[in-house]
Amino acid sequence: MFKFEGANILSVQQFDRESIEYLFRIADAMQPYAHRHKRTHVLDGAILGNLFFEASTRTRVSFGTAFNLLGGHVRETTGLKSSALAKGESLYDTARVLSSYSDVIAMRHPDSGSVAEFATGSRVPVINGGDGANEHPTQALLDLYTIQKEQHAHQLGIDGMHIALIGDLKYGRTVHSLCQLLCLYKDLKITLISPAELAMPDKVISAIENAGHQCIITEQLEGHLDADIVYQTRIQQERFPSEQEANLYRGRFRLNQSIYTKHCKSNTVIMHPLPRDSRSDANELDNDLNLNPNLAIFRQADNGVLVRMALFAATLGVENLVNRYESEVRWYSNKGNTVN
Amino acid sequence: MFKFEGANILSVQQFDRESIEYLFRIADAMQPYAHRHKRTHVLDGAILGNLFFEASTRTRVSFGTAFNLLGGHVRETTGLKSSALAKGESLYDTARVLSSYSDVIAMRHPDSGSVAEFATGSRVPVINGGDGANEHPTQALLDLYTIQKEQHAHQLGIDGMHIALIGDLKYGRTVHSLCQLLCLYKDLKITLISPAELAMPDKVISAIENAGHQCIITEQLEGHLDADIVYQTRIQQERFPSEQEANLYRGRFRLNQSIYTKHCKSNTVIMHPLPRDSRSDANELDNDLNLNPNLAIFRQADNGVLVRMALFAATLGVENLVNRYESEVRWYSNKGNTVN
Amino acid sequence: MFKFEGANILSVQQFDRESIEYLFRIADAMQPYAHRHKRTHVLDGAILGNLFFEASTRTRVSFGTAFNLLGGHVRETTGLKSSALAKGESLYDTARVLSSYSDVIAMRHPDSGSVAEFATGSRVPVINGGDGANEHPTQALLDLYTIQKEQHAHQLGIDGMHIALIGDLKYGRTVHSLCQLLCLYKDLKITLISPAELAMPDKVISAIENAGHQCIITEQLEGHLDADIVYQTRIQQERFPSEQEANLYRGRFRLNQSIYTKHCKSNTVIMHPLPRDSRSDANELDNDLNLNPNLAIFRQADNGVLVRMALFAATLGVENLVNRYESEVRWYSNKGNTVN
Repeated sequence: MFKFEGANILSVQQFDRESIEYLFRIADAMQPYAHRHKRTHVLDGAILGNLFFEASTRTRVSFGTAFNLLGGHVRETTGLKSSALAKGESLYDTARVLSSYSDVIAMRHPDSGSVAEFATGSRVPVINGGDGANEHPTQALLDLYTIQKEQHAHQLGIDGMHIALIGDLKYGRTVHSLCQLLCLYKDLKITLISPAELAMPDKVISAIENAGHQCIITEQLEGHLDADIVYQTRIQQERFPSEQEANLYRGRFRLNQSIYTKHCKSNTVIMHPLPRDSRSDANELDNDLNLNPNLAIFRQADNGVLVRMALFAATLGVENLVNRYESEVRWYSNKGNTVN
Repeated sequence: MFKFEGANILSVQQFDRESIEYLFRIADAMQPYAHRHKRTHVLDGAILGNLFFEASTRTRVSFGTAFNLLGGHVRETTGLKSSALAKGESLYDTARVLSSYSDVIAMRHPDSGSVAEFATGSRVPVINGGDGANEHPTQALLDLYTIQKEQHAHQLGIDGMHIALIGDLKYGRTVHSLCQLLCLYKDLKITLISPAELAMPDKVISAIENAGHQCIITEQLEGHLDADIVYQTRIQQERFPSEQEANLYRGRFRLNQSIYTKHCKSNTVIMHPLPRDSRSDANELDNDLNLNPNLAIFRQADNGVLVRMALFAATLGVENLVNRYESEVRWYSNKGNTVN
Repeated sequence: MFKFEGANILSVQQFDRESIEYLFRIADAMQPYAHRHKRTHVLDGAILGNLFFEASTRTRVSFGTAFNLLGGHVRETTGLKSSALAKGESLYDTARVLSSYSDVIAMRHPDSGSVAEFATGSRVPVINGGDGANEHPTQALLDLYTIQKEQHAHQLGIDGMHIALIGDLKYGRTVHSLCQLLCLYKDLKITLISPAELAMPDKVISAIENAGHQCIITEQLEGHLDADIVYQTRIQQERFPSEQEANLYRGRFRLNQSIYTKHCKSNTVIMHPLPRDSRSDANELDNDLNLNPNLAIFRQADNGVLVRMALFAATLGVENLVNRYESEVRWYSNKGNTVN
């Protein structure tokens, strides 16, 4: 099994099935803290360097919150221009210096490979929070964790399930990484629904097929939504060559309650990496789905905190100490009341 | 009485006199912590989501400090562009996600009504830190708290007092909200001093008159400054249609020590929501007032921390636990030495 | 001796040799916490106002980390535009308000003298984190601390040593301040290597000579690098009248391993205030020096945390309490393993 303590988390390729199952058991154990039934001080005094050289409110805050929930401090850096990188400093130097300011680093950066390069200079574990078009492993892990948890509610595991991925499968790094993780499982049916121009890269398709999964490629929603999981994506304008090209595809595969009723199973789970584009010309997932109990998109975001807590606990080697330093929550909270 | 625990604080209209008096008693009890005679850990482990989608250094830091003074962590987001809102995410979605990252949220946003809209998706209490031209309830509460405290030093209450509001009464949301709160009290004399073009909206004047207060409307400072409280405002350039229009009024109602001596009572208290514009073409409150013991503007800013601490304690239901988790301050401080 | 408790740290001119030695003994005592052998809660509940009105990732995070390592909270403000200063607020007013939000302030600002002006309004100690072309006293202190520590490893003190300063000696405020501190020591040989146009200001040269030191001024690297310390600087583009003028000098005095072997002593220590410009047209310190054990640039950055911890502890008067509130570090760390 992958040894978490002291390790960098740079790519989904680091994981085997056993490591993932180990990590997900830790994530499960984090629920009482995230739901505010209890709190823990296990990382009281530890410092997270939360380095977001590319903007991402939700991922940044999710990492920071996860660390606070374990009791630690967060020192944050946002933006590229203001940083020493703009003065010609190498990522190696930046890492040597900034890693002396924290116990663990979460980092997002617009350039592919930059986080791995940074990690060569870091003296503390580095967790990749997204390096351009390359990888976003914590998103893939939280997606897989969500799939497992939602399936578990239906008394099913991941092996043998049917998952449909919809939308921009070309630029959407989250679906690339998710597919790589799914290759660790058995006998899946994976349906890839996208315009031909935004098709899943051949490399990923080969990986799916080499894993022994059934892979269906189509441009049609109809007839392909009777899956266990339907994973809708966002047109990631920032990855397209131009805004015009992104606009060509915006709103091509909308999902709403009437399509759901007509084409999905009664318990098909809907996922989305968020943010969903709710502007009328996009409307990836219609608001009329908000009352559908199978809309898992907010549970998915919540799971991000659990998975990131698990990664911090495991890389810092405290996963077995978390409950030793727990105490009561004495302030108002109704987070335990699970909602949609 | 308004039930604070678990509630959103969106508007001054939520409050009746009893609720305000309850809140202000909590604020009074916060003084030893803010003045560093003691500290408290009552919210140790709790997380504030401090969401400033519009810039405001002083309000943002005041909320964050108030939460730190109660022992909690602060996760901060600033700016609109960098947020998912710019990718077409609805405020409802943003709220669903970000509210899972904290125990309470303080939020400022440039659009009227946006904080209330956000609150519909939030799973934790939301405190309005200013929503465009609409409301800024914590400012109104700290203003009222300051009036009460300053009057109390003169052995007076709020009922029956004379307050003069000066300057931009059209765009200044703080004076609108303050007037609404003053309607909960009795027999006030409220003098509104502004250029006709920046007059107090009719709606607010009606409310003042319907509350049974005496309301005087004038364009002259002279003869109207013998009040218990003189509340000077800033030309809020950002609310004007253009900078030129704002410039027309800048510096129209300057107050300095010689005007104070000539027109004010010997103990007229001077307030201002800050920042005061000290550029020579504005000079709303001259620096020669800095030595006047009745210049309350910095005490007013200090009170903002007390009122925000009270709101956090009350919405999270820990107002009666604060002193149970207190301990000594062991580092240097001379904050207890009250200054101007 | 300079009384640290409650004092502002605005300039290197505040220090005498006794004060520096006192401060450096505190910095030494901070090592176990920075290296994660232990942690301390001495400032648990205290708040640092980290005000960076000019961007500086490394200095900002170093201050914040130093405060977290002592157990305190950090409230951060970055950027000038977003602040009330842009609305015409005086530094005095800003200070009166923001100082009520924290127990100590670290501040950087683009204007010379601004931090001292701010300090006149502050009710808590203010530490200058750099005020434009004027001073950056914590950098000078950490540089001097590094020189002492590196020399100590060679069983030498600062008195009598030979230090060579290279590069932009005109705009580089760090070398100006460092030279002022060196004037507190005896019998130094100080070699100033720069293009004539970027020569050390006469005022600094006079101070060096008045302190009884030997001062050599040259435009040549060769023959002048057999020093105990070689201090390389960065072309600080932001201080030059134009980018073109800065470019004229970029890369004029590169140092690499072959030059080191040929011209330096076997144990000449290399320092740099960082960030070093590693772009090919600058290359101030070549990457082939990274394996040279005498490249002290990252130890120097690490020392910044120690010196800033010492300044916080001393100005807040807790330097003798730090170890009374210490506890174990229970998470993964290999920071104790000193590296290059």
